[in-house]
Amino acid sequence: MIIVMKPDHTADELRELVMKMEKLGLKTHISKGERRTIVGLIGDRDILQEIPYTSFAGVESAHPILRPYKLVSREFKEDNTRFQVGPNCEFGGKAIPIIAGPCAVEGREVLEEIADALHELGIPLLRGGAFKPRTSPYSFQGLGEMALKFMSDVRERTGMPVVTEIMDPRDLLLVYKYADVLQIGTRNMQNFRLLTEVGQLDKPVILKRGMSATIKEFLMSAEYIMSRGNGKVILCERGIRTFETETRNTLDLSAVPLLKQLTHLPVIVDPSHALGRVDLIPAMTLAAVAAGADGLMIEVHVRPHEALSDGAQSLTPEGMANLIERLRPVAKAVGRELLLVPGAHQVRAGEKVEAGA
Amino acid sequence: MIIVMKPDHTADELRELVMKMEKLGLKTHISKGERRTIVGLIGDRDILQEIPYTSFAGVESAHPILRPYKLVSREFKEDNTRFQVGPNCEFGGKAIPIIAGPCAVEGREVLEEIADALHELGIPLLRGGAFKPRTSPYSFQGLGEMALKFMSDVRERTGMPVVTEIMDPRDLLLVYKYADVLQIGTRNMQNFRLLTEVGQLDKPVILKRGMSATIKEFLMSAEYIMSRGNGKVILCERGIRTFETETRNTLDLSAVPLLKQLTHLPVIVDPSHALGRVDLIPAMTLAAVAAGADGLMIEVHVRPHEALSDGAQSLTPEGMANLIERLRPVAKAVGRELLLVPGAHQVRAGEKVEAGA
Amino acid sequence: MIIVMKPDHTADELRELVMKMEKLGLKTHISKGERRTIVGLIGDRDILQEIPYTSFAGVESAHPILRPYKLVSREFKEDNTRFQVGPNCEFGGKAIPIIAGPCAVEGREVLEEIADALHELGIPLLRGGAFKPRTSPYSFQGLGEMALKFMSDVRERTGMPVVTEIMDPRDLLLVYKYADVLQIGTRNMQNFRLLTEVGQLDKPVILKRGMSATIKEFLMSAEYIMSRGNGKVILCERGIRTFETETRNTLDLSAVPLLKQLTHLPVIVDPSHALGRVDLIPAMTLAAVAAGADGLMIEVHVRPHEALSDGAQSLTPEGMANLIERLRPVAKAVGRELLLVPGAHQVRAGEKVEAGA
Amino acid sequence: MIIVMKPDHTADELRELVMKMEKLGLKTHISKGERRTIVGLIGDRDILQEIPYTSFAGVESAHPILRPYKLVSREFKEDNTRFQVGPNCEFGGKAIPIIAGPCAVEGREVLEEIADALHELGIPLLRGGAFKPRTSPYSFQGLGEMALKFMSDVRERTGMPVVTEIMDPRDLLLVYKYADVLQIGTRNMQNFRLLTEVGQLDKPVILKRGMSATIKEFLMSAEYIMSRGNGKVILCERGIRTFETETRNTLDLSAVPLLKQLTHLPVIVDPSHALGRVDLIPAMTLAAVAAGADGLMIEVHVRPHEALSDGAQSLTPEGMANLIERLRPVAKAVGRELLLVPGAHQVRAGEKVEAGA
Repeated sequence: MIIVMKPDHTADELRELVMKMEKLGLKTHISKGERRTIVGLIGDRDILQEIPYTSFAGVESAHPILRPYKLVSREFKEDNTRFQVGPNCEFGGKAIPIIAGPCAVEGREVLEEIADALHELGIPLLRGGAFKPRTSPYSFQGLGEMALKFMSDVRERTGMPVVTEIMDPRDLLLVYKYADVLQIGTRNMQNFRLLTEVGQLDKPVILKRGMSATIKEFLMSAEYIMSRGNGKVILCERGIRTFETETRNTLDLSAVPLLKQLTHLPVIVDPSHALGRVDLIPAMTLAAVAAGADGLMIEVHVRPHEALSDGAQSLTPEGMANLIERLRPVAKAVGRELLLVPGAHQVRAGEKVEAGA
Repeated sequence: MIIVMKPDHTADELRELVMKMEKLGLKTHISKGERRTIVGLIGDRDILQEIPYTSFAGVESAHPILRPYKLVSREFKEDNTRFQVGPNCEFGGKAIPIIAGPCAVEGREVLEEIADALHELGIPLLRGGAFKPRTSPYSFQGLGEMALKFMSDVRERTGMPVVTEIMDPRDLLLVYKYADVLQIGTRNMQNFRLLTEVGQLDKPVILKRGMSATIKEFLMSAEYIMSRGNGKVILCERGIRTFETETRNTLDLSAVPLLKQLTHLPVIVDPSHALGRVDLIPAMTLAAVAAGADGLMIEVHVRPHEALSDGAQSLTPEGMANLIERLRPVAKAVGRELLLVPGAHQVRAGEKVEAGA
Repeated sequence: MIIVMKPDHTADELRELVMKMEKLGLKTHISKGERRTIVGLIGDRDILQEIPYTSFAGVESAHPILRPYKLVSREFKEDNTRFQVGPNCEFGGKAIPIIAGPCAVEGREVLEEIADALHELGIPLLRGGAFKPRTSPYSFQGLGEMALKFMSDVRERTGMPVVTEIMDPRDLLLVYKYADVLQIGTRNMQNFRLLTEVGQLDKPVILKRGMSATIKEFLMSAEYIMSRGNGKVILCERGIRTFETETRNTLDLSAVPLLKQLTHLPVIVDPSHALGRVDLIPAMTLAAVAAGADGLMIEVHVRPHEALSDGAQSLTPEGMANLIERLRPVAKAVGRELLLVPGAHQVRAGEKVEAGA
Repeated sequence: MIIVMKPDHTADELRELVMKMEKLGLKTHISKGERRTIVGLIGDRDILQEIPYTSFAGVESAHPILRPYKLVSREFKEDNTRFQVGPNCEFGGKAIPIIAGPCAVEGREVLEEIADALHELGIPLLRGGAFKPRTSPYSFQGLGEMALKFMSDVRERTGMPVVTEIMDPRDLLLVYKYADVLQIGTRNMQNFRLLTEVGQLDKPVILKRGMSATIKEFLMSAEYIMSRGNGKVILCERGIRTFETETRNTLDLSAVPLLKQLTHLPVIVDPSHALGRVDLIPAMTLAAVAAGADGLMIEVHVRPHEALSDGAQSLTPEGMANLIERLRPVAKAVGRELLLVPGAHQVRAGEKVEAGA
């Protein structure tokens, strides 16, 4: 930590600061320039971070030298984190998995329709919301446990592991029971209690970037999860809030190579929520893969205009099929490939697939 | 709702749209201009809000005419909402209450020191964090129930009702038991489950604006609380996230007159978290009152540089005393006054004040 | 400047960096911590600012210690800058001048009507646009020199010095000839050529904050003007661009106390352009004065709905009169007063007032 | 235009509004809903845009139906605009030209070194700043005409057409004389006078998006240029200002497919200025091409750490060569190709290439 003293600080103020810092176990190093005196502090990172330096008399500013995250950092672990979800899908490897499905689970039949179509395309993971965070209390809030059951049944039917959002620590056991991957939504990226809870599970967690979260805050939230023991964290860029109104949010693709540099965790991209409009999704999905994304999360619905939420941003299965064809060569061009489940089209309704088989 | 059709839409697309809208019970009204055809939709606001218009073929854009909130709206209730907190303090009236105290409760003694000093100044409400949302998992997370007990004891000692943040629905009973006012923090403004829970209580709730929440989203979150029956909602502007880095966030004071126009709920301002630095707090507190704030929330600590969180933005009691003297004439200048508890300085440690007396 | 080396930098990289810095005349100071090696650089501020530190091999980050501005800084000049505009108006003093008038000069008669009404109210300075920066090439672009002549004639008539915007260095002589104060608009805050030009004049310049300019950039633009010799710079906060759409921009009032701390230059506030809607202007003008503004700039039109630009944000003279009555006690409450020209109401159309008299 | 009346508007207010609108030549259409009365206005787009609707008594809000731009719009011209720059380079076609070179021209020799290296790589266009917009008045401001001469000489030497920024209308003839493509920088996107001037030229103009400009404003600035007759406008996304500080700005790649949908003009991407750091440039350049960019603008310097501006974001020629190899397959994957000048490596210093040959 570098402390810059005010030009008019007194010798007493400097002495007081140094004394208090040393009492906290920090080593200090004073350096007097022509215009400013600087105090370097060396010691435990967690202590360094916590001190309200500018509330000391005579202090002008404080500049942290170390990044505040540890476990999520590439400095801590150099190699990419890799892990399996179900028998066919790996995160963090060369192949790029696609998570697709409806925003919300709206009923058994429509979910089956969507899942069958995605399965046919070889999509390895199914998403679907059971508990929906909606801006309005009068909007459809999700089917809750019933939706989880439908998803679980569809997993039996298709073999696709399922991804669903958890909004409330009280739903933990319920969601854990049914889901293969838990998702923390953008509005809960700093719901630290929820992070702490999922940090104690043994299932992968998709952590979505808060819509106004800095990269540093995003990684600190992942650090919450890892600090509790769960290393299977998937970071998901999903757009940040800016002044632009043509798109719902602004997809920050530079977060992808930046995160890949700072952390060993897999980084995926959700263009659907970032853009909020279906017409721009194909181009931005191609761009996400070119930027180095380790996975994709895309909303698909068989009849978007009947969707109970986010219809305006949902691809149809045909749209998804078309997008896959366009994605293949781009993935190849950057030395990757799409993770599609071979032979998926041979599994049909009625055939049971063992979970974990 | 106004639907604008694309210039090249077909007659079939228009017919399809109209048919579907009428099936949903909406009345439609087509108007053909030179360059665009427009479809007006009339019907239930909640239905109108939910339809993904742009996923219909031929639709260019959709423009809502009605604001999406009801219960919180001035259209719904014209007069200012007013309610008491404890015997001495009212929100929504002419007098402006100040809520002051430390960011986090750090121990019994330091809390007593702070509370006594504030009580001496006539401050009507004490704030203090028991559960702290911290960016880092390695930072001080609050003393939990112990902090609540300390606050409750200090209420006994000073008669000051206490305000504290709730972060987790599982803490509801605990926090309800000890606190007079519950606070929903900026990171939980869209924690809809938590909103739903506090909406079922009979105690006032301070709802802080999310740091990247629009005014509309802010009011929709208040609507969540009111829709469950709790009408005692206090809206708190606490700064929004912008590109400026000299201050932690940008205090959006225009939210005050804007909210006063849109809603009947009291609107208070927290300059401490918005600015993150103590030197700008006095000027911005004066400005908040001039802008029409119905209350203030300000961090005060007896020894800011020892504070375990947010020391850099805490006033000392002397700073607070000085600020009160500067606030008085400004409040008067805009036809208001500070709500200070008369005779507070006569209550001393050891004298017991009955809660509710 | 503090340079932080990467954890894996080589001794050669460090040596190379130090050598190059010393060649540039900088003193270096190496300090090895447990996790990072730090290089402190001392020397000429302008040289320090210009070096692309992170393009050196082995460098992780660079942290400037000194602020980049000089002449505009309080460190350079401690006392408030004060100067006269015309015989009756001073900037930088205790009294707060109001600059009022239409967005654009639309014709001789309407300008006279507005100016007479403002003069009647004691407003000391008249604003009016001759050259208008408009988003659309098809919008009214201002009357140009004719507008300047009308303003000049109105100055004869009322004695009010006039403020107008300059958009193009080629208009310099023209605008200089007619205007008493030149304004640089928000879109030209970083039109460095224009800044350099007005920096060579002997007339005051109102520099508006760019709508996405940081405080640092704002002051650097003022530095451009001062570095050419013109010390009569008035800084004007006029709203910054954020995600909020209820107001045109977000008025950043915290910029007022912050700027007053960093610079000796007067700081004024333009609530009209920040808010873009007339209903919020009174409250935010009161707040601006409470925050410490040294002046105000407010759009006034006799018939806002006929205005050729910015009608939606213009007060009527009656609105302005009412606002003055509300402003007086607030100014007094913060130890200031409004600068109103006494006896103004006795000057009438037809009576000639000598410029400078 | 759709006007929404306040719920408590009077019949007189409505009548007054309608009367005034019809006087302006607009047709009105009143529609009374349960909660709101709506007035539709039909007529000339430019008139519709200019009226300050909310300054009329009884009006709650106004909603424009038509986009405000014409000439730049796909509605106006369906096919992509295509044009040549020099004998070898086309914008708007299938092949993607790269514009590369130093931020600023720093001297004849270093420019020749850079240009030769780029020419060797087949880069079709050379960029270099003669007039530099710098935040600080004490920073290197460019070599002015001397830089233009060096660029012109290098064009002779290599055959590469040159791109340079114009900041001041007074430099128009000078820059026109030497440059093949004129660039309007991000800070001048709304320098409407400059736009008007370059709108009268017959040379292509690269218009950079203002760093806080909406897509609508961006297109309106292009409309300024086209409305004066110059249809050779190239739109350049170069990052927008957000709260994120790890990158200088946030590259908004979704602007690429969005602009391609709204306008027929070519859209290029400048990752260098958006990111401000060289390490993220390769990944984001690949992403730009995948997103559909029609061209790229990339800073290259032979010795970035000696660059007088923007060294931290400059690739070396080796970095550029490597990037080209990575770009080729991505371009191909999206049905495009890089526009590289074949045989470029055979042209050597000393051989004169005729301009336009």
